[in-house]
Amino acid sequence: MDIATRVYNHRWKLDPIVRSLIDTDFYKLLMCQSVFSNRRDTRVTFSLINRSDHVPLARLVDEGELREQLDHIRSLSLSRGESTWLRGNTFYGKRQMFRPDFMEWFEGLRLPPYHLERVGDQYELTFEGAWPEVMLWEIPALAVLMELRGRAVLGEMKRFELQVLYARAMTKLWEKIERLQPIENLRIADFGTRRRHSFLWQDWCVQAMIEGLGARFAGTSNCLIAMRREVEAIGTNAHELPMVYAALADSDAELAQAPYQVLADWHAEHSGNLRIILPDTFGTRGFLERAPDWLAGWTGIRVDSGRPEEGAESAIDWWKRHGEDPREKLIIFSDGLDADRIEALHARFSGRVRVSFGWGTLLTNDFRGLCPGDRLAPFSLVCKAVAADGRPTVKLSDNPLKAMGPQDQVERYKRVFGVGAQEAMAVEV
Amino acid sequence: MDIATRVYNHRWKLDPIVRSLIDTDFYKLLMCQSVFSNRRDTRVTFSLINRSDHVPLARLVDEGELREQLDHIRSLSLSRGESTWLRGNTFYGKRQMFRPDFMEWFEGLRLPPYHLERVGDQYELTFEGAWPEVMLWEIPALAVLMELRGRAVLGEMKRFELQVLYARAMTKLWEKIERLQPIENLRIADFGTRRRHSFLWQDWCVQAMIEGLGARFAGTSNCLIAMRREVEAIGTNAHELPMVYAALADSDAELAQAPYQVLADWHAEHSGNLRIILPDTFGTRGFLERAPDWLAGWTGIRVDSGRPEEGAESAIDWWKRHGEDPREKLIIFSDGLDADRIEALHARFSGRVRVSFGWGTLLTNDFRGLCPGDRLAPFSLVCKAVAADGRPTVKLSDNPLKAMGPQDQVERYKRVFGVGAQEAMAVEV
Repeated sequence: MDIATRVYNHRWKLDPIVRSLIDTDFYKLLMCQSVFSNRRDTRVTFSLINRSDHVPLARLVDEGELREQLDHIRSLSLSRGESTWLRGNTFYGKRQMFRPDFMEWFEGLRLPPYHLERVGDQYELTFEGAWPEVMLWEIPALAVLMELRGRAVLGEMKRFELQVLYARAMTKLWEKIERLQPIENLRIADFGTRRRHSFLWQDWCVQAMIEGLGARFAGTSNCLIAMRREVEAIGTNAHELPMVYAALADSDAELAQAPYQVLADWHAEHSGNLRIILPDTFGTRGFLERAPDWLAGWTGIRVDSGRPEEGAESAIDWWKRHGEDPREKLIIFSDGLDADRIEALHARFSGRVRVSFGWGTLLTNDFRGLCPGDRLAPFSLVCKAVAADGRPTVKLSDNPLKAMGPQDQVERYKRVFGVGAQEAMAVEV
Repeated sequence: MDIATRVYNHRWKLDPIVRSLIDTDFYKLLMCQSVFSNRRDTRVTFSLINRSDHVPLARLVDEGELREQLDHIRSLSLSRGESTWLRGNTFYGKRQMFRPDFMEWFEGLRLPPYHLERVGDQYELTFEGAWPEVMLWEIPALAVLMELRGRAVLGEMKRFELQVLYARAMTKLWEKIERLQPIENLRIADFGTRRRHSFLWQDWCVQAMIEGLGARFAGTSNCLIAMRREVEAIGTNAHELPMVYAALADSDAELAQAPYQVLADWHAEHSGNLRIILPDTFGTRGFLERAPDWLAGWTGIRVDSGRPEEGAESAIDWWKRHGEDPREKLIIFSDGLDADRIEALHARFSGRVRVSFGWGTLLTNDFRGLCPGDRLAPFSLVCKAVAADGRPTVKLSDNPLKAMGPQDQVERYKRVFGVGAQEAMAVEV
């Protein structure tokens, strides 16, 4: 490294983990624009939830360092080049995906304040504010915590231990890629921003996927990496939309309609491969049973909890009942994927439907078994909308261990959405 | 990388493999000084011998590139810093190991011409000249051929394939080091210059050993790396001394004495841990049986062919017969070592003798199984003194597959040195 670069780098007060507002998932920006248009004034609270309570985050991560990283994120604004890319790039085949009024707002955005408190061995980290602003905290907050926890472990390692650690991680990923290479018609994207090991590592993973899988690598959910590596930015929508819409419902009847209202708003805005149903927020079975007919005309479905085979079969049956040809439909698997599951799901569904994969944590953070005590293994950290205009949100999903919300509201939602017994499945990452 | 460095690097006409006259084994310099004092005018021919004839070197390595590399080596001379280090550093606890007259000669040295010819799929590469000059061709010639063969394979690999290749190699070595870490009293040195994968890789291996084994890593045979990494330069003497001394013998009686004459000359020059017998040139058993009593007073023995357990047991018996305490003696194992063999030999001999290891090719070039067709696996290439003052040399060793020399001379040597039946063992590296 040249001296000037070294000197320049040493002027950083800290080594920032998130260095750009677009170091986030593409679907966050799509949803943000939708919310900006439809529910701009809704007050929402996002909250960090560590589902792996055996990981004592507050003992591992220094509060001061965490604050520095979060403060740094609050200092970020969209750069000129990032703005140009968002305004000028083609996303999902469409020019000007982001409208001028949204871009103007985004260009002026700084992330709102955060609230951080240590409670026992965990942090309470919440973000309150206008929905389109606070929603953009989710991904950087998760990435910062994951990476700070990693740094705490890495900081104790010696130089060659570190080299070998990354050598092992590279080998591990490459062997997965080699395993995926023979799969014809594979279509797979990186969905691993939120629980990545680190930014640099995610960037390496994406480049390895580009070289190893060529056209079968569909792109990355990370906008910054998509821009820099010149690949597609990938993503559609997430649970927060039906969760917040549902929380705002004034009656059970309105609540029952809320998930479909989300998609009606989305329908007005997007077409083609962006018309992807995420049906599991309040239970996939009931969602499909009560879905309006026009939804069957949508392009596909994303399977994000429960047994993926069951979710996919339900969708296929549902399309058939509505006279749709499943072979023209797209199923995106995105829950807890690894190479073996991708292989198995592809073998079972390829040809019957169009299959695609959103590979997350075990793409960008499979450091399991790579250091003593497994202290770099990924864990299940989420950041969710927990309240909207003062009302609690609820998520049921197809796995009761992923459910969240006050117990009485959970019961109410189960009744309204006709959710019966559910099978519990361990949530790894 | 900064622009200036990049521009500077692009001015190289080639990417030189050997960039220093001390990028060679330490024992070559010790022997060179000895030869410079005792046999300066002997005319010796060194010749490249590819014992792995399934590796078609001349098809893999371009003749023009090979000539460029060899020509580059001929342009090298000792740098001021290298000279200062050789003159001023302590080797084996001794200051001024290299005498001023030798250093003055070495500072003026350029390597003599080479003769290169393609014969079928192999190269005939020979070096003729005064012994102290031509002997310094051995290590760089081998290193150049090994690395050019590697580059031919590496040149076809893509960027991430390369990264993963090295990631795998690093992991492989580190797992060996981790396996060696629990061995108490381990003493191990890098002997892998001649058949290393590349200079940079050897340098990485040495650094990994420094970090992973700490004080149990005794040092490296490579002078340049020893200087740069500030570790001990390790090595004593090799087969070329008895081979050339033997070839110069005028009678069978003189021939029988030649190996002891080598050690008598060495005895006059060196003490302590440099008094290491290499007994296998013409068969270990006969060597020890006829050895003069004063040799039993030497510090140790190096076991470099045959079954290492047998060689070591013979030495222990021999010391006992001469009233020496084996626990004060040093046995250096240096033939075809890998972690498992090191473990086993250490378990068997530690405590009975002082044990040390010279770990060669499988330290610095274990790329077995790391690329398709195993085209980076190391192979058995040597560069040997084949003639002295017009007479052919002979080596028997304790493995008939390592024997070399004209058949009639091999028979004569076997008779003179009383070598009976020998067990053939595959020569891997």
